[in-house]
Amino acid sequence: MNASPDIYAQIGARDVLWPSGEIRSSPIAGVVLTGGDVDAVAGLLTLRERHRFTLYATSEVQAVIAENSIFRVLSKNCVERRTLPLDAPAALLTPGGVETALAVTAFPVPGKVPLWLEDEGKDPGIVEGGHTVGLEVTEPRSAARLFFIPGCAAMTEAVARRLRGAPLVFFDGTLWCDDELVRLGIGPKTGKRMGHMSMSGESGTIAAFRDLGVARKVFLHINNTNPVLTEDSAERKEAEAAGWTIAHDGMELTL
Amino acid sequence: MNASPDIYAQIGARDVLWPSGEIRSSPIAGVVLTGGDVDAVAGLLTLRERHRFTLYATSEVQAVIAENSIFRVLSKNCVERRTLPLDAPAALLTPGGVETALAVTAFPVPGKVPLWLEDEGKDPGIVEGGHTVGLEVTEPRSAARLFFIPGCAAMTEAVARRLRGAPLVFFDGTLWCDDELVRLGIGPKTGKRMGHMSMSGESGTIAAFRDLGVARKVFLHINNTNPVLTEDSAERKEAEAAGWTIAHDGMELTL
Repeated sequence: MNASPDIYAQIGARDVLWPSGEIRSSPIAGVVLTGGDVDAVAGLLTLRERHRFTLYATSEVQAVIAENSIFRVLSKNCVERRTLPLDAPAALLTPGGVETALAVTAFPVPGKVPLWLEDEGKDPGIVEGGHTVGLEVTEPRSAARLFFIPGCAAMTEAVARRLRGAPLVFFDGTLWCDDELVRLGIGPKTGKRMGHMSMSGESGTIAAFRDLGVARKVFLHINNTNPVLTEDSAERKEAEAAGWTIAHDGMELTL
Repeated sequence: MNASPDIYAQIGARDVLWPSGEIRSSPIAGVVLTGGDVDAVAGLLTLRERHRFTLYATSEVQAVIAENSIFRVLSKNCVERRTLPLDAPAALLTPGGVETALAVTAFPVPGKVPLWLEDEGKDPGIVEGGHTVGLEVTEPRSAARLFFIPGCAAMTEAVARRLRGAPLVFFDGTLWCDDELVRLGIGPKTGKRMGHMSMSGESGTIAAFRDLGVARKVFLHINNTNPVLTEDSAERKEAEAAGWTIAHDGMELTL
């Protein structure tokens, strides 16, 4: 027996959930990468096959994606790859090439090359360039804006200048303190070695933001060793007392 | 303030869940790949970083993994890559190189190269070689054995001969019928074009297994368009009436 056409009509009807009228779709119209680390790029391989979207990344990150043939699962008929300039706004386009209300400016922050491009056993050091970027997302017609910086190895003068007075910043919250993994016996690497500032301490993120006048500050990209994830921890209280919010699944913010 | 050492001692203690005594571990001691398609290999990128295991694959599949630098997240200090021969048993080793009770024999089944290695727009055709393999997993001391064949484009005489009288076979259950995606308006590809037999029809899997005398037959790798996933469907009843089990999350079988 073959399935009756009715069975397929039913399945098809159940699947039509999308405003686009397509049988299969998703609200994701674009992906903007802030680096080539595996936690930033591996998700591209688990999106639905033949899903149409636009992939934005700096030329450095587009190059590492291009070098890895596995990313050809993002068929060029479905996924357009666009190179983000540094320090200049780029309008975000729909997969069909129509301008959306949003623009994004990528800017270099201190970071390191992705782990998988390191020479094993050698510290690649912290550099500033197109490998690790922060994003300023703007809606030009309303002047609404936010910063998204999931990885940052140090607060430089240039980064501080950009963030001063911002209405909303999402920032690298990987570790509470630099030797967290070492103290837990999990690994030999410090936060600095991994390209991340820590929340606490004199050169930490909480201190670095103290005088920047940022209205809303949200930690994300939080490692599962970071005690701020424990709601009743002293560290959580300290971060919140300094005006930080700890990001959580399903969080929604309005600008 | 820095975190007190106590906080880390608590987190560490909470994390010690593993018989190995390690703070972070997993019961996965090895991964055996049956092909290089993205659904087979992308999961390697979401395993815990620095998790020690052994990665088994044919030379063809090891080559495509090696060509993609992103798989260097599987550090060579933690993940040993071993090449599986075709048609000969290989003992499965722990990451430390100790023989386990299990052996695996990889054998070619009709299939196609991974989608991401196709020349876009060209049908690569069905071939038989090291790109797509089935596995016979054995426990030599007990003579227990099973077959694991998540992708197979056709039942050849050679494959049928191997499976005859087997106690347990897990088999490619992608589609119910060959033009399923076409009929649903989801895409232009048939099952054959994707390298999969279908369950139904004269050249389908249910018919191909009818006289093989396999004691337990389990469909897995089932696409979300396949009506056997609907528990009260006529197709589910037909598959079960022919002696097939539809795999489900958390399924456990004892040999």
